[in-house]
Amino acid sequence: MEEIQRKLKKFSDEREWERFHTPRNLAESIVLEASELLEHFQWQLKDKKLTRKQLEGIKEEAADVFIYLVEFCRIVNIDLIAATEAKIAKNAKRYPISKARGNAKKAVKR
Amino acid sequence: MEEIQRKLKKFSDEREWERFHTPRNLAESIVLEASELLEHFQWQLKDKKLTRKQLEGIKEEAADVFIYLVEFCRIVNIDLIAATEAKIAKNAKRYPISKARGNAKKAVKR
Amino acid sequence: MEEIQRKLKKFSDEREWERFHTPRNLAESIVLEASELLEHFQWQLKDKKLTRKQLEGIKEEAADVFIYLVEFCRIVNIDLIAATEAKIAKNAKRYPISKARGNAKKAVKR
Amino acid sequence: MEEIQRKLKKFSDEREWERFHTPRNLAESIVLEASELLEHFQWQLKDKKLTRKQLEGIKEEAADVFIYLVEFCRIVNIDLIAATEAKIAKNAKRYPISKARGNAKKAVKR
Repeated sequence: MEEIQRKLKKFSDEREWERFHTPRNLAESIVLEASELLEHFQWQLKDKKLTRKQLEGIKEEAADVFIYLVEFCRIVNIDLIAATEAKIAKNAKRYPISKARGNAKKAVKR
Repeated sequence: MEEIQRKLKKFSDEREWERFHTPRNLAESIVLEASELLEHFQWQLKDKKLTRKQLEGIKEEAADVFIYLVEFCRIVNIDLIAATEAKIAKNAKRYPISKARGNAKKAVKR
Repeated sequence: MEEIQRKLKKFSDEREWERFHTPRNLAESIVLEASELLEHFQWQLKDKKLTRKQLEGIKEEAADVFIYLVEFCRIVNIDLIAATEAKIAKNAKRYPISKARGNAKKAVKR
Repeated sequence: MEEIQRKLKKFSDEREWERFHTPRNLAESIVLEASELLEHFQWQLKDKKLTRKQLEGIKEEAADVFIYLVEFCRIVNIDLIAATEAKIAKNAKRYPISKARGNAKKAVKR
């Protein structure tokens, strides 16, 4: 993770792109890349096995989401791993096993 | 990373939520959480320092994006770290330093 | 349509919100409201009839998307109806009936 | 509006695309087109006048959002104009002029 963060910083430093990497611009970019990921499932009527070619595209979009997410966290100074562990712990309390088991999440959530 | 992936799998196994975690459902959820992250910047007229409270909310949304992204990659069997390193290498060729330096990305991209 | 545009302008004028309604802020808001609309279908495993309550929520989100879309078009000076008719005509050429009939859109699109 | 709805129905009938137009598929498509609209503002550091060429692209994306929104409303049987007028009336109560005037929406909303 630190390795990727370091590589991304070097990448944008070398291109003098840091000034475009405002928190808001990066948040927008996360949404835009996530939408490109979702686009691979557009018009699907039921789940089907992904083809090798689809998987290649999906892999790149997933990487793009991650790239901007890691950059975003660096810029706003969030430790993504720690934040994620805290969120998992919080979710575990919010959705106790006994009540959540097998329920559609939405039903539980609302 | 593996630790987080393992925790998330345990979390959804215990709740029998795995069957809701289709690739498409997870891709949608990544978009939805990314939008909630962006919502923190809605109506902003210029960049301002994030308050401590905003940062707390942002931290949780960033974690949610990551949680669904990691789950998505597990379900479709993508190695996110490898995919990201491959994408960074590809981007380095696509945007050579000499041409990209200081340019607005859009101008370079299109 | 003009009636709605007029009402929305009056609404934001009375609240002095016009200055927040930059093209970018409105474009973001369209995405955010569209995501809230999609949220009603999150975790769905197959299509089911919408409940009356879901339909109420969906109605409001659809209205929110439309409200920001109409505002956006007013601010950037786009005639939405004319633009839509032009796009439908363009699509008719892009997807000729003989080739497009019954095909999954994606297959046709790519 | 009815004219556009009728044209869109004819368009998808002729291509036998109706079966792809599930509420969920259309909701996803609204998000995806809204993201393409937002993409025109990605990496922007401050608001600038849109070029003629940008405006052409924006016009098409705005039309795409509207096309899927109108289709969505037809499929789930929502009267978009009535829903929008109801939402404007509701917003007028939620954000009374005296309290909302000049305030950043977020501050008011939360």
